[in-house]
Amino acid sequence: MDLFASQDAGLSALFAPRSIAVVGASTSAQKIGGIPIDYQRRFGFDGAVYPVNPHAERIQELPAWPSVQAIGRPVDLAILAVPAPLVDSAFDDAVQAGAKGVVLFSSGFAEVGAEGAAAQARLGARARAAGVRLIGPNCLGFMNVARHVYATFSPAPNVGRVQPGRIGLVSQSGAFGAYAYAMARARGVGLSLWATTGNEADVQLADCLAWLAQDPGTDVIMGYIEGCRDGPRLRAALALAQAAGKPVVMVKVGSTALGAQAAASHTAALAGDDAVYDAVFRRYGVLRARTLTEFFDLAHSAAVAGRPRDRSIGLFTLSGGVGALMADDASAQGLDVRPLGQAAQDRLRDWVPFAAPRNPVDITGQVTNDLSLMERAARLMLDDQRFASWMGFLAAAGASDAFWPVLRSLVAALREAYPDTLLAVSTLLAPERRAELEAMRCLVFADPSDGIRTVAALAGLPAPGAVAPVAASTGPALALAPGALSEPAALALLAEAGVPVVAHRVVHSADAATAAAEALGGRVALKIVSAGIAHKSDVGGVALGLQGAAQVRAAFEATRASARAALPAARLDGALVARMVEGGGVECIAGVHRDPVFGPILMFGLGGIHVETLRDVVLRPLPLAPGDAQAMLGELRGAAILDGARGRPPVDRDALAAALQALADFALRAGDTLASAEINPLIARPVGEGGCVAVDALIVGSAA
Amino acid sequence: MDLFASQDAGLSALFAPRSIAVVGASTSAQKIGGIPIDYQRRFGFDGAVYPVNPHAERIQELPAWPSVQAIGRPVDLAILAVPAPLVDSAFDDAVQAGAKGVVLFSSGFAEVGAEGAAAQARLGARARAAGVRLIGPNCLGFMNVARHVYATFSPAPNVGRVQPGRIGLVSQSGAFGAYAYAMARARGVGLSLWATTGNEADVQLADCLAWLAQDPGTDVIMGYIEGCRDGPRLRAALALAQAAGKPVVMVKVGSTALGAQAAASHTAALAGDDAVYDAVFRRYGVLRARTLTEFFDLAHSAAVAGRPRDRSIGLFTLSGGVGALMADDASAQGLDVRPLGQAAQDRLRDWVPFAAPRNPVDITGQVTNDLSLMERAARLMLDDQRFASWMGFLAAAGASDAFWPVLRSLVAALREAYPDTLLAVSTLLAPERRAELEAMRCLVFADPSDGIRTVAALAGLPAPGAVAPVAASTGPALALAPGALSEPAALALLAEAGVPVVAHRVVHSADAATAAAEALGGRVALKIVSAGIAHKSDVGGVALGLQGAAQVRAAFEATRASARAALPAARLDGALVARMVEGGGVECIAGVHRDPVFGPILMFGLGGIHVETLRDVVLRPLPLAPGDAQAMLGELRGAAILDGARGRPPVDRDALAAALQALADFALRAGDTLASAEINPLIARPVGEGGCVAVDALIVGSAA
Repeated sequence: MDLFASQDAGLSALFAPRSIAVVGASTSAQKIGGIPIDYQRRFGFDGAVYPVNPHAERIQELPAWPSVQAIGRPVDLAILAVPAPLVDSAFDDAVQAGAKGVVLFSSGFAEVGAEGAAAQARLGARARAAGVRLIGPNCLGFMNVARHVYATFSPAPNVGRVQPGRIGLVSQSGAFGAYAYAMARARGVGLSLWATTGNEADVQLADCLAWLAQDPGTDVIMGYIEGCRDGPRLRAALALAQAAGKPVVMVKVGSTALGAQAAASHTAALAGDDAVYDAVFRRYGVLRARTLTEFFDLAHSAAVAGRPRDRSIGLFTLSGGVGALMADDASAQGLDVRPLGQAAQDRLRDWVPFAAPRNPVDITGQVTNDLSLMERAARLMLDDQRFASWMGFLAAAGASDAFWPVLRSLVAALREAYPDTLLAVSTLLAPERRAELEAMRCLVFADPSDGIRTVAALAGLPAPGAVAPVAASTGPALALAPGALSEPAALALLAEAGVPVVAHRVVHSADAATAAAEALGGRVALKIVSAGIAHKSDVGGVALGLQGAAQVRAAFEATRASARAALPAARLDGALVARMVEGGGVECIAGVHRDPVFGPILMFGLGGIHVETLRDVVLRPLPLAPGDAQAMLGELRGAAILDGARGRPPVDRDALAAALQALADFALRAGDTLASAEINPLIARPVGEGGCVAVDALIVGSAA
Repeated sequence: MDLFASQDAGLSALFAPRSIAVVGASTSAQKIGGIPIDYQRRFGFDGAVYPVNPHAERIQELPAWPSVQAIGRPVDLAILAVPAPLVDSAFDDAVQAGAKGVVLFSSGFAEVGAEGAAAQARLGARARAAGVRLIGPNCLGFMNVARHVYATFSPAPNVGRVQPGRIGLVSQSGAFGAYAYAMARARGVGLSLWATTGNEADVQLADCLAWLAQDPGTDVIMGYIEGCRDGPRLRAALALAQAAGKPVVMVKVGSTALGAQAAASHTAALAGDDAVYDAVFRRYGVLRARTLTEFFDLAHSAAVAGRPRDRSIGLFTLSGGVGALMADDASAQGLDVRPLGQAAQDRLRDWVPFAAPRNPVDITGQVTNDLSLMERAARLMLDDQRFASWMGFLAAAGASDAFWPVLRSLVAALREAYPDTLLAVSTLLAPERRAELEAMRCLVFADPSDGIRTVAALAGLPAPGAVAPVAASTGPALALAPGALSEPAALALLAEAGVPVVAHRVVHSADAATAAAEALGGRVALKIVSAGIAHKSDVGGVALGLQGAAQVRAAFEATRASARAALPAARLDGALVARMVEGGGVECIAGVHRDPVFGPILMFGLGGIHVETLRDVVLRPLPLAPGDAQAMLGELRGAAILDGARGRPPVDRDALAAALQALADFALRAGDTLASAEINPLIARPVGEGGCVAVDALIVGSAA
């Protein structure tokens, strides 16, 4: 995607200004127009700062200017801290003065109603026309931590500043961003850029994510999103981060109806379907954090340790009980806790007769009698199985002055001997000691369960370079007419696209129906054909399991009569005679719908109660990535049913995946002319018995 | 239950000794036999300490004695820190000297094999015979924090001591217990008693739990369990805690196969079925913690704030984003986030035009202009809806010196005005400030999600006084013969017990079968009767949907012939003719099996793939508590299916619950003579259409 072909030069100028004007400058370091001046002066900004206020000569010991243009020297960034009615003229002044970027703190725009929204839209358009990047309105601005730029009025840095680091954090919400800043400080997490995007008249969260994906000073990206205004833009930004191998950790609120309602009352952004966001995040390997603790654990850990080679993990413990706890956690998280080989197990038992030598390896309290046991056992584990990750529960060792040197040299030795192994320890450590181990790329957790959960999440990050280019579509474009297609037309389109459909004929007389039944063979189903009747069985328009000419003939007449009686105005275009799909299989459902934010979304699920009552479905944004269709099958909660529940043979997963891929290609070819498509049922047959077959389909073209 | 009719006097003597002998005393404060002497001397124990060691005159500045008996003064507690071969004589010496309690650190017993297990069993028997309570062997001992008794060789107190408090902690694992002690210290959680039970030759975890349930110094109980040796004992202890209104928080390892394996390799205790433990915990309102963080969050919060009246919660925030996050969490946790009334909402909007006034209430950054808004809005919320819990996200307010007094007086005002409301705030606070709010019974969380999860868990604690006595059985005892009963016999027993069973007749001839079919009416099923054939359909012994004399007669002959051909040796006792249950309903399954630890367990699930593939079943230990049977129905993941999936009417839940209760009563009457009972299918009919009906049943008597 070339939405972000190179790093946004306008954003670079905005985030790394050499000169800053503060419009609406205040003499008080407590006020919105005074705080940024105070911060630039105290926190080490090495560029020029120009207070702009027509009513003052000097502000906070700096000369003040009546306007940005009056400064007469280059101004990279203008911070506007003026009431909403004054924003337009202040913006003009900044643009005239040649500012490349504008941060607009002021509230009173889209969040207050339609008039504010219109004013905001005009501002955005003017920024784009002028080639100026605008952050806000109604935002807390940004901080470029490495360059000591504090273009914010958040009180958070006053309490204490976050250290420079390689994690970039962008938030749509100012208050959330400020709290995250305070948590980063409290947890000793270093940041490169901190930005809040507010009402997003111009710069969106996605723009900042894309900029961070290309920022050499950033390794890991944290994002907080309430609603996305431009789905393709967000997807392009996430694709950039994935291609750059930078882990992205996101918090998205609104996973429940109540949360979505709360988010909607708070933001002007489209809430959208949370399950679709989830699918988009999965598509780009984004780690979705459900809590603030997870948000920081994941991002900080990704920055410290990166991604493990695979899901294998060696678990090491001084306590059998905690070993069992870690085994439970690792097992539940789908990590590969494979046992040591027998020779290694025997060796361990030679050293400690009552050790648990499989995995977890429990060397017991015996270690207190022989401290060398720890490193020997850890090396034995890693030499034997080359685990991608190794995690040791070392009890309260880290809190003991006597034991700390042993712990430090253990980590140093393992880091040197196994440079590509993800190392983690669970122990209680003072912050300085923790930082010392982290500097050796060793993760530290007080709670072993946090460690296991984090390692499992990091193992789910996409492999670097794994981003295969996906074609937008794989065939000639299709243009669907608006409204629902008839069932035969829908089946024909799907068949042409490569979806296996049930053997069927369209007929216009009872004679033709009996002939079709005979030609198809076996038992047949007969359904009226009418584009105007979406629910054929509700009007008696469907007859199943017909055998023999008499039954078929009777059904032809009966379904027509019944449908006419129910809906006299509907036009009947004959009947569809289809071979009954018999002999078992699993009823599935597949479809595509158009999400207002992210466009076409593929859906797959098991039929019947699974989709209707248990809501067990899997979504993917289109186009699919390689392997997506197969992966979707495995992500159902009821996936085991595909593998042959109740003694039945497993279904043909390859055929199902191929049908999903064909449906996806069809949807892409139809583009904007497709409103929705649904195959229900799509019957999955056992392996070797004919793949899968679409028995009924409904396709609806978009209203013009 | 009278297993623990009064607090165990022996344990009281053991946990609160006035004099302690340490056998195997060492001059080194680093050694197992020296540590407890060092601790008693340094940590404020005000009783007598007697080192016992025949090879020394003085130990750590105290006179040493050659034996416990040689001391010649009363010894309440003897700590044995001698090698396994010397344990027997040391124990005898302590008993002869009149010790009331013994702590046995030594390893080399059940954990090393059969011989050690036998020695351990003999020790336990001798302790019981002598009326002495024995903790261990292979344990880290205990600490009575309030009384400064440190009968342990754990190094943990050396790094820093836990403050006295009202939480008792018992662990089967020494290393886990020691880490939990260190975490308690790091988190500022105060303890009453800390105990580890090791191999449990005499004192079990359950005994300690029961003691804590009756200890006036303990309000909240924490337990770590790997495996329970005596199910009824554990249940009795948990019932005591429930009756006393003391929250119990447990960690139980082995929830996965891998974790269970790791736990089994670590402990001599029976692993048992984790799902049964879960059911037992639920029965007694035990909060099961899945991580160490949860373990402490729950226990500490229960001690600080207790149980909220109900699940209603008012959410208050300064950040719309975090408000949405809290709404998501509260919704997912099943809390009742009901909105404020319209008048209160209007009032809020008068104060802050852009506030979100429903619930969460978001008063926005406006609060910085008017600090009084916080208390006014909080009072408005609580006056309007009388929420049982109120939680406020106050951003980084707690970290700001300027804002802290406002926060403190907010909490003080709310505590005074709403004494029975659970108060919680999410903000960043230094430990002293946190303690100050906690002293006002206000919970403090850095992560708002931790807060919501904790409040939801506390709301799940049993209401005080809610422990209804449950009868052990409700009818005359039944004695089942060993082995499988025939189906008619099983149906007859269940019918007598009050479970509705399908209308049926037992016949011994084709003529009788046709007569029975005619008498029953409608379509019938016919099955061979043979106690020796468990799977009748596998041998062709079942025919369904028979209509008319000819079909019934043919089926009678065909099923007999088929079964005889398959199993010539099996004895056929005629056939069972049953009315087909037609017209819809939901196939369920119900049963009772005997757990080796906890005895009879009732199981309920939905039939077919739900139980076989998705393993969606609910368990309860017997006897049921009032309301248990109804509650079980709602705990199925697929519970919505009972409420009428796919347009079907809801089933009769009362009838299902009554059938479960009847099955439970039957199992209690049969007592130890019942190995298992299973009704499959138990068909649940729609409301008003005949309740539910057992269609097939298998009952197996215990082997003699």
